[in-house]
Amino acid sequence: MDTLPLVRCVGVEAVAPSLQDNTADLDRLRAALVHGLDDSLAARPLNIPFRAMGPVAARFREAGFSGQAVLNVLPHRLELVDFLAAPPPLLPAMALDLGTTHLEASLLDLATGRRLARAHTPNRQIEYGADILSRIHFAATTRDDGANGLALLQEAVVESINVLVRDLARAADVAPGAIRAVSVSGNTTMVHLLLGLDPRHICREPYIPLVNSPDPLAAGEIGLAIHALAPVWVLPSTGSYFGGDLISGILASGLDRMEKTCMLIDVGTNAEVVLGNRDWLIACAGAAGPALEGGVARMGMRAGPGAIEHVRLDRQAWRLEYQTIDDTPPAGICGSGLIDLVAELYLARIVDLRGKLQPDMDDNTAARQRFLRDHIREIDGEPAFIVAPASETAHGRPVLLSQVDLDAMMRSKAAMYAILTTLTSQVGVDFADLDAIFVAGAFGKHIDPRQAIVLGMLPDLPLGTYRPLGNSSLAGAELILLDEEARSRSGEIGRRITYIELNVNQEFMIRFSGSRFIPHTDPALFPSVPVFGNGQRGRKA
Amino acid sequence: MDTLPLVRCVGVEAVAPSLQDNTADLDRLRAALVHGLDDSLAARPLNIPFRAMGPVAARFREAGFSGQAVLNVLPHRLELVDFLAAPPPLLPAMALDLGTTHLEASLLDLATGRRLARAHTPNRQIEYGADILSRIHFAATTRDDGANGLALLQEAVVESINVLVRDLARAADVAPGAIRAVSVSGNTTMVHLLLGLDPRHICREPYIPLVNSPDPLAAGEIGLAIHALAPVWVLPSTGSYFGGDLISGILASGLDRMEKTCMLIDVGTNAEVVLGNRDWLIACAGAAGPALEGGVARMGMRAGPGAIEHVRLDRQAWRLEYQTIDDTPPAGICGSGLIDLVAELYLARIVDLRGKLQPDMDDNTAARQRFLRDHIREIDGEPAFIVAPASETAHGRPVLLSQVDLDAMMRSKAAMYAILTTLTSQVGVDFADLDAIFVAGAFGKHIDPRQAIVLGMLPDLPLGTYRPLGNSSLAGAELILLDEEARSRSGEIGRRITYIELNVNQEFMIRFSGSRFIPHTDPALFPSVPVFGNGQRGRKA
Repeated sequence: MDTLPLVRCVGVEAVAPSLQDNTADLDRLRAALVHGLDDSLAARPLNIPFRAMGPVAARFREAGFSGQAVLNVLPHRLELVDFLAAPPPLLPAMALDLGTTHLEASLLDLATGRRLARAHTPNRQIEYGADILSRIHFAATTRDDGANGLALLQEAVVESINVLVRDLARAADVAPGAIRAVSVSGNTTMVHLLLGLDPRHICREPYIPLVNSPDPLAAGEIGLAIHALAPVWVLPSTGSYFGGDLISGILASGLDRMEKTCMLIDVGTNAEVVLGNRDWLIACAGAAGPALEGGVARMGMRAGPGAIEHVRLDRQAWRLEYQTIDDTPPAGICGSGLIDLVAELYLARIVDLRGKLQPDMDDNTAARQRFLRDHIREIDGEPAFIVAPASETAHGRPVLLSQVDLDAMMRSKAAMYAILTTLTSQVGVDFADLDAIFVAGAFGKHIDPRQAIVLGMLPDLPLGTYRPLGNSSLAGAELILLDEEARSRSGEIGRRITYIELNVNQEFMIRFSGSRFIPHTDPALFPSVPVFGNGQRGRKA
Repeated sequence: MDTLPLVRCVGVEAVAPSLQDNTADLDRLRAALVHGLDDSLAARPLNIPFRAMGPVAARFREAGFSGQAVLNVLPHRLELVDFLAAPPPLLPAMALDLGTTHLEASLLDLATGRRLARAHTPNRQIEYGADILSRIHFAATTRDDGANGLALLQEAVVESINVLVRDLARAADVAPGAIRAVSVSGNTTMVHLLLGLDPRHICREPYIPLVNSPDPLAAGEIGLAIHALAPVWVLPSTGSYFGGDLISGILASGLDRMEKTCMLIDVGTNAEVVLGNRDWLIACAGAAGPALEGGVARMGMRAGPGAIEHVRLDRQAWRLEYQTIDDTPPAGICGSGLIDLVAELYLARIVDLRGKLQPDMDDNTAARQRFLRDHIREIDGEPAFIVAPASETAHGRPVLLSQVDLDAMMRSKAAMYAILTTLTSQVGVDFADLDAIFVAGAFGKHIDPRQAIVLGMLPDLPLGTYRPLGNSSLAGAELILLDEEARSRSGEIGRRITYIELNVNQEFMIRFSGSRFIPHTDPALFPSVPVFGNGQRGRKA
């Protein structure tokens, strides 16, 4: 690799001490080390942290005054944190996507860039609060036994990370203490909770975090079960809502280096969107996610085994086909399944342009009549659509779409489109000018852009414009570990981004209202999508 | 002050956060702070240590986003460690002379350079070993209760320092936690024990310390009861025997910036000597001290209340006069008193040129006979000289000088002169070429150079050549706190010094033998000193 990883081993050969050369062990090591450094590193001051002094000197001596110095490569200095008798077979470091509900991590070999293992685990903070807001509130509480909410939340997430550490170390057959660095990509609140920093101002106007760009710290300072002096590199954030996970996405997509303007969409608990190129970056975020993340829909669930991720409605044979993740019996429906489903129901004129479950009865065939009879039920006085009957599901209850779910879905899709149009209009960019739209995460991986276009959730562009990114939060964290250029880019991105606060944006509210139809109140924006009237509102186009 | 102290307060006025300016607290503080820095500081990267993040952000907010940032001014970076609502009345920092038997400290106001208080206390490590060697051995032991010797020694010295912290804070009416920095000047072993670093190789050939130039650490890391993030700046050492206390002496005397060659003599447990000017520095050390430091003489004691520090023998009236420190009844005799005494006894032909208590009986007067009868006793089959009779002393026993004490004294004075001549001969400098000889510490303060010349301990130069420095270990530590130039000079001195190991120096042994007469085997070296023969060896000159 010709990139500069966050930790590097450098060979050292020092002359053994003698009466004629009585320099102290660490000063001897330091002097010999400088010879082994290339110019870019030799110019940086070299620090030996207090806690490293004793162990490093002892190992240097044991190794006969030659071996490998382990260096943390920080922006303005090097930290000498360990000494090994021989080049280690691997130089493992952990990239971490610190999600609100789920943590994902990978173990990389910093010497080669090779991925050694991957792991994921739930975020144990869930026991104290399902979402960010409830955790911020919990952080301010004190339990009956005197335990402080913030400390409990920090402990919980550190425990979760240490589960990953053990899993990754076992999978790669290395000692946890041999993991030499960790990079953390997460939203602003999750980062505060990890560092034990008070998050209270994040959720109160004017929404100010305690820190956006924390300096690197030592893993031991927060109890991570890796090498105690391993640097913890936290990706920076911008404001409260634009987290390091999204800066990771920009890094992974390369948006900040693009000549042509591109867009990045990340749908998690919030929808976060960045627009830009190598010259400028603008971003905003809004609550477009809940219906797509299993937070609202009654049968909603995260994209995981048993989630219905794709739905097709054969409008000739009037047959509904669904596909679950891992092909296991369905237990619910995830965001991409929901988008597919509603788009298909719209195209079948079962959901109308207002997003109501109200079949258009014109041109009704016998097969369609049968389909409607099999799939539509009245539940609690409201119509509901049965996606999978009880006989087929994992839990013996039907997976169904209620009007409540549909309404939530409509709000989410309207919010998404309003976010996208508000952002582009701020800089006078047309959707058609976009070279690519990167779609991050599980949402990007599973979603069918065509269906999202039908709903009016994503702009009506050639499908090739949409590029799934995968877990770009994790991918960005991996880049941070491997490449100093990515580390300095992450800081620049944090500083370069202009962030638009939608909570106070009038234009957004107007655009949101205009987007609460399928595909839109202005169908001309979606030329590829057929527009139907239903019985109450008019005739199909 | 136009010097740059180790800690500085810098005024910060930040704009309060708003929806339009949602930068995080610490990033806001950091950005505003950079405006308040002058160019020399603005160029350095600014770090916020992990443990400072929470408290600093909270205080910045409480203070309404303006106030005073407390910065540690490190060589290659700034550390933002605290935030105050208003400029503090004082910016206290502690300079520490970390002696083997005794600690001395002062509290300075870094804003003005003013000394606020001074204090001293015994080094509690004495309970584990009186001298360096015994402590190094103790450090390697494990007590029955499992306690580790090194940890016990570290604990003991930290306790002693914390006694000084409390005394200084009380005297200056500040909180211990308001003390913002500490500089430490001590010998190499004392520094190792303070930092909890294994000293075992210091006393074994080839005498290699674990560290000569430790990087600054945080006070909290070693349990000092001052601000936890106060920088602990340890003066560097060279090799094993040339400690930070002596580098302090060079700083305080300005030896490293002199145009003309000068010499610095520091007599503690060892005699340490530096020769040089702004172009070169050469140093050596040897065991010349014990007899002068209360370690060997039966009635020897440290220079403290009750120690006989000066002795005069009126050779007309044959009366002995002594002076004690603080004018309290005598309890013993300190180094300067011993030098005075032996010189006076030599001039009175009571001690002969070999250093034997053997009065020359030629030209004996009645008064002299009476004096000899009153002052000389046979004790344990050896003659002894009574300095103060039992009736005058603090403890009701006479203070006396035995032949054993005299022999030790002769070895010390011979070693001292041999060290000085070995060092000057290494660089071909004559004593007469020296512009000044700085004499550090209590030895320099109390000694009468004329008497030391009579003994042949110091070279026969005009008395104005000799300049007492006082506690230059402490004075150097004070400079370190106040002046960045002194901090960088201390590092340069450490690197520039050429250290000569006397333990393996043949020339030293030859010169040592030649120096075991009063004033010397070659009296031509001491033209100002009368040479006598005694009854057995010849006639007076």
